[in-house]
Amino acid sequence: MTSKNSHFPNACPLPATSGDTIQLAHGGGGRAMARLINSIIRPAFDDTELDRQHDGATLILDGPLAFTTDSYVVQPFVFPGGDIGTLAINGTVNDLAMCGAHPLYLSVGLILEEGLSIELLQRIVGSMRAAATAAGVRLVTGDTKVVDRGKADGMFINTSGIGRLVSPTPIGPASIAPGDVVILSGDIGRHGMAVMAAREGFGFETVIESDCAPVADAVLALFEAGVEVHCLRDLTRGGLASALVEIAETARLAISIDEAAVPVADHVLAACELLGLDPFHVANEGRFIAIVPADQVEQARDILTQYSSSSGAVVIGRVYAGNGGEVTCRGILGVERAIDMLSGEQLPRIC
Amino acid sequence: MTSKNSHFPNACPLPATSGDTIQLAHGGGGRAMARLINSIIRPAFDDTELDRQHDGATLILDGPLAFTTDSYVVQPFVFPGGDIGTLAINGTVNDLAMCGAHPLYLSVGLILEEGLSIELLQRIVGSMRAAATAAGVRLVTGDTKVVDRGKADGMFINTSGIGRLVSPTPIGPASIAPGDVVILSGDIGRHGMAVMAAREGFGFETVIESDCAPVADAVLALFEAGVEVHCLRDLTRGGLASALVEIAETARLAISIDEAAVPVADHVLAACELLGLDPFHVANEGRFIAIVPADQVEQARDILTQYSSSSGAVVIGRVYAGNGGEVTCRGILGVERAIDMLSGEQLPRIC
Repeated sequence: MTSKNSHFPNACPLPATSGDTIQLAHGGGGRAMARLINSIIRPAFDDTELDRQHDGATLILDGPLAFTTDSYVVQPFVFPGGDIGTLAINGTVNDLAMCGAHPLYLSVGLILEEGLSIELLQRIVGSMRAAATAAGVRLVTGDTKVVDRGKADGMFINTSGIGRLVSPTPIGPASIAPGDVVILSGDIGRHGMAVMAAREGFGFETVIESDCAPVADAVLALFEAGVEVHCLRDLTRGGLASALVEIAETARLAISIDEAAVPVADHVLAACELLGLDPFHVANEGRFIAIVPADQVEQARDILTQYSSSSGAVVIGRVYAGNGGEVTCRGILGVERAIDMLSGEQLPRIC
Repeated sequence: MTSKNSHFPNACPLPATSGDTIQLAHGGGGRAMARLINSIIRPAFDDTELDRQHDGATLILDGPLAFTTDSYVVQPFVFPGGDIGTLAINGTVNDLAMCGAHPLYLSVGLILEEGLSIELLQRIVGSMRAAATAAGVRLVTGDTKVVDRGKADGMFINTSGIGRLVSPTPIGPASIAPGDVVILSGDIGRHGMAVMAAREGFGFETVIESDCAPVADAVLALFEAGVEVHCLRDLTRGGLASALVEIAETARLAISIDEAAVPVADHVLAACELLGLDPFHVANEGRFIAIVPADQVEQARDILTQYSSSSGAVVIGRVYAGNGGEVTCRGILGVERAIDMLSGEQLPRIC
């Protein structure tokens, strides 16, 4: 649409002192919007494609691509280990990685509420920029809308992403087979509990930090090494449990996991117990499962443990024949229990 | 992220009777979300890529691409000539066309407010599907978030799009030159006034219908015919005035237009006069300007007039040397006035 990413040679910089807030005029396609974009958003994202000032970006790409989108509505905006900006970059980068793709280009759609602090906006776009640099992706096109006070919750962010497919075979539930092994990239439950604690103001003895991180490097290393990855899934909304059940149901196979093998940090487990939450259902933002053939599991795990975001990768279970999508978990006393998704979500607005 | 576009063989259809509303659980990544997606969203969008149930879509594309994003926050959702769903498809399709690209694939990010009518949601996703079919694009990946009551305004939609670049030369303000001619694709001001009238409940004598329409066919025909298009811009937020000023400022050239040549329908002009609005600043959703070399203007106009969305295409002005980005308009009495953008927007939340 007209007016986005636009550069006006005579636009004066918008002062961003602590009292400045977003006004409806900042979304109107006129001078005020140009100043906002030129003083806050474009300098933060700083990409030659954004500087071209057109209705979209022009990219050169060959061959098969992955394309994904996500909106981010987390509250609070800032939590230990990240903020909505970090999340908006890493979440979409990770979705591309889960498709077996090398993340390359992201778009950014901002919906801002009238009255939002411009200092906060600057912080968040700064986080987006830092996360994009860390993940090696470019923010190449964007859009900013403003809605009247009371009609949003400060800010919502959409990021869509394009990546170059590197997996030589299709990645997804349809590719898994009985005998395949499930690798989990690290301990679970930290993102959900970090956001929960920040939202509710719980003062746990040890601060829980979100696991929010880009995982593409680790995943791409599997492909580079020739590991025949069958399925990848990040453990966001619905946590480990939803991911396993979705995959098993779609594949019409069964998955059994070993409860003792699933790592949960002590302070996260304590917080979950205190609040009556099951860490299997708590959202993560830097954890994923990789399902690989049994004869390649050692190689895959060894590769993943070389990357900081998956240094704690462990084997947690196996795929079996079965047509009902059953997921079971064998407890430390040997008792098997069924794992299912919840109806909704224990913790809304976690991402 | 986990849980989007997911298909569960055992999910029961969600009944959508008039009293049903969106609940927080519909965004939680569990069973309720699966039912919403499987009963309302996936059937409406109906694409094999969505059925693959993974974190993103896999696309085969070669060569240079255009990539764009837009969020839609229009109020009211439904207005004469379209709704937020039609707008969300056509707006992004048109942005791709303005890049000189053939629109191919769209993503859809929905942010729904708890309490939204599911019947309304069904209507809107139905409109999106119809508009996508009409524009020849596929909706290949999506995401749904739900926020608590009072934290959004019913629904916001983001669409991002990928198209294949067909323009052999760069399209944009940097490509225009003195002597180029400005073609406008049809009468202006209808979208903004249609939304305004619907929002405020004005009962104008003649109902004003939005011009919301996909314009890619008409634009692509210019390239097919070998017209050397220098710049394209759709006249959305900020209207014709903002588009001209942005282009002139970016190009550091001057543009002069002939007021009498700019078509405005009588009932739109009457409504603008009644409300004290300048049609040059009112948003359109199916109108664009094309800036072409003077020796190709007849050919370009003849092509555009063959398409319904640009059947009223007319020459309205010309590019001149000048480094201040001046845009002037010569009135019917021969008096020149300067055209500038407004500070904000006369009509907020028009798209």
